[in-house]
Amino acid sequence: MATTLITDIAELVTNDPAQGDGSPLGVVHDAAVVADDTAVRWVGRAADAPAADRVVHATGRAVIPGFVDAHTHLLFAGDRSAEFAARMAGDAYDGGGIASTVTATRAASEDDLRTLLARRVYELRSQGTTTIEIKSGYGLDVVTERRLLELAGTATEETTFLGGHVVPPGVDRDDYVRLVAGEMLVACAPFARWIDVFCEPASAHAFDGDESRTILQAGAAAGLEVRVHGNQLAAGPGVQLAVELDAASVDHCTYLTGADVDALAGSGTVATLLPGVEFSTRSPYPDARRLLDAGVTVAVATDCNPGTSYTSSMSFVIALAVREMRMTAAEALWSATAGGARSLRRSDIGRIAVGGRPHLTMLDAPSHAHLAYRPGVPLTRPIELAERG
Amino acid sequence: MATTLITDIAELVTNDPAQGDGSPLGVVHDAAVVADDTAVRWVGRAADAPAADRVVHATGRAVIPGFVDAHTHLLFAGDRSAEFAARMAGDAYDGGGIASTVTATRAASEDDLRTLLARRVYELRSQGTTTIEIKSGYGLDVVTERRLLELAGTATEETTFLGGHVVPPGVDRDDYVRLVAGEMLVACAPFARWIDVFCEPASAHAFDGDESRTILQAGAAAGLEVRVHGNQLAAGPGVQLAVELDAASVDHCTYLTGADVDALAGSGTVATLLPGVEFSTRSPYPDARRLLDAGVTVAVATDCNPGTSYTSSMSFVIALAVREMRMTAAEALWSATAGGARSLRRSDIGRIAVGGRPHLTMLDAPSHAHLAYRPGVPLTRPIELAERG
Repeated sequence: MATTLITDIAELVTNDPAQGDGSPLGVVHDAAVVADDTAVRWVGRAADAPAADRVVHATGRAVIPGFVDAHTHLLFAGDRSAEFAARMAGDAYDGGGIASTVTATRAASEDDLRTLLARRVYELRSQGTTTIEIKSGYGLDVVTERRLLELAGTATEETTFLGGHVVPPGVDRDDYVRLVAGEMLVACAPFARWIDVFCEPASAHAFDGDESRTILQAGAAAGLEVRVHGNQLAAGPGVQLAVELDAASVDHCTYLTGADVDALAGSGTVATLLPGVEFSTRSPYPDARRLLDAGVTVAVATDCNPGTSYTSSMSFVIALAVREMRMTAAEALWSATAGGARSLRRSDIGRIAVGGRPHLTMLDAPSHAHLAYRPGVPLTRPIELAERG
Repeated sequence: MATTLITDIAELVTNDPAQGDGSPLGVVHDAAVVADDTAVRWVGRAADAPAADRVVHATGRAVIPGFVDAHTHLLFAGDRSAEFAARMAGDAYDGGGIASTVTATRAASEDDLRTLLARRVYELRSQGTTTIEIKSGYGLDVVTERRLLELAGTATEETTFLGGHVVPPGVDRDDYVRLVAGEMLVACAPFARWIDVFCEPASAHAFDGDESRTILQAGAAAGLEVRVHGNQLAAGPGVQLAVELDAASVDHCTYLTGADVDALAGSGTVATLLPGVEFSTRSPYPDARRLLDAGVTVAVATDCNPGTSYTSSMSFVIALAVREMRMTAAEALWSATAGGARSLRRSDIGRIAVGGRPHLTMLDAPSHAHLAYRPGVPLTRPIELAERG
């Protein structure tokens, strides 16, 4: 298999503390990487690099692990820019707008959805994201949820069944919970790795703790792994439920009690923060420092979706993490790569290490600090390792 | 001269209220534009468009006037990412870091500065900016200030002499003001359209009202037009001085008194807001709504510089204007295009109208609302009208 040497790297972030400076980022200066299209084969100083079939010169730029975007809702039709404008003019967000996307998504043809997904995946990849989790949740009926997951599976291994996104308008809550945990789950489980639920008693549209537990336990019994939307709009049972069920991740974590933080710190559950949501809903940001200082593993992701965070830029999320959540640039980058990998319980991504996936992103900048220092500037580009015909 | 028809435009923003919907943005749906490489020749509905030598299909995208970035400090050497990181960790900003850029810029070769400038201009243009104002101000001696302005003039007509950026360390204030208003001005005036000064008594490094007046009046007497950095760190004399001298623009306007707002409203001076600075210094944002509601003409710009706002993205500035300064998406776009043109006293840019410059930017989105709705996403691309050999 053809190998590629990427060399002249001013700053290589490996996320492997055994490398370089021994920090969590494992930074190697004047570095090189050798990879083929399935795995990283060598990491070290450029002066020591072995030969390869092809050479890419980074010419003084930084190279980082590809971003792991562990929370997206990429599969939808319709446009909600008017709802965004209304919210910026003062309207509140309560989750009710999801129904308009459900209507548009149900009405879209398979071909249209396939095209929309392909465009969005390309958009994320061209900005340096190499792993994308994709949720269903804009179908909310058996046929459409399954169709969304089948489509998502053409783009990623990280597919999440989110029939428990909101209760569809006009449907009885109890009936809907039974459907999600029953017939819909049976239809969707073959196409999903994960089960997720929008646990948010503060929203009339989402699910309370008991409803969420019912859905998640049914999913786990069907062989799915658990992740949870929790504590976005108010303190609530989401975080505690996630920890109780050993969820890989609880996402949002905007409103936390001391008991929530303690529970996370003593758990294997990652807190995935989504500051693009707070930016686009003009809400207070999660307290990342409190979580980090308590020893909680923190990931950051885009939550790319048409209602509350239509960004696809992990660089923008990092800039917000530094500016608004007081993470250091190093912490934010770790959370956008290794943290995302942890929240997906993956050890083959989110770092640059021998044997791991060859997911590399180049920065048009000499160091990772520029991701926060240069907000809004498209600094990232994928490094393509496979030959393109 | 060869003409190009750009057609299939879902939403054309002309900034010409005589067009389309009659709003300040003059929006035309299902539109087309014909231009050659010197001017716009025709604007209207796609169905009515005349023939042209070449056709560009926007295929349902929006087209807007190219961004007018009326406040940048693009000509500098050195790296201040460490200062940025320290500030994010809690250090305050007082203008003192400018001296480190001055040291690096003085030490840089002409070739290095030329390369740095070319890269940055390319970066701005590739993000949809078609007019760039560039200030000197990192030389602070006669030879270097003149060199910076000569270089800036190779990239733009909008060159600004900012010898009055800060008092260089170790130099007597009075001596320096005399130098800027005397020998340095004489050397620089042939290469500058504008004179500017950092009027900020709250900074030990910048200039008070009397010093600023001395410098600006000398510049005006030498034939330069006036713009002012004012009211960034505290309320002060900058805005009133700008209005007194009929400056084209007073930039920052973060701290304003009621009298400042009244003075601006009754003047021909534009308030140019630079929210990238507040993002990157974690400061309170200017009150754009108060200015707009008072009838002040507002522009927005990047202030692209290595100390306080190293963004080059006008799209990011628009997203901040909406999220943080409560401008509507339409107001923010107008301020980033027509507003910038007003602040440069130009009528040939910042709009798409017959006879105006053919500065067009395409969005990878169906409407301008997406610039704020999709923060951090690189949606903009220039439309190249001249044939490339």
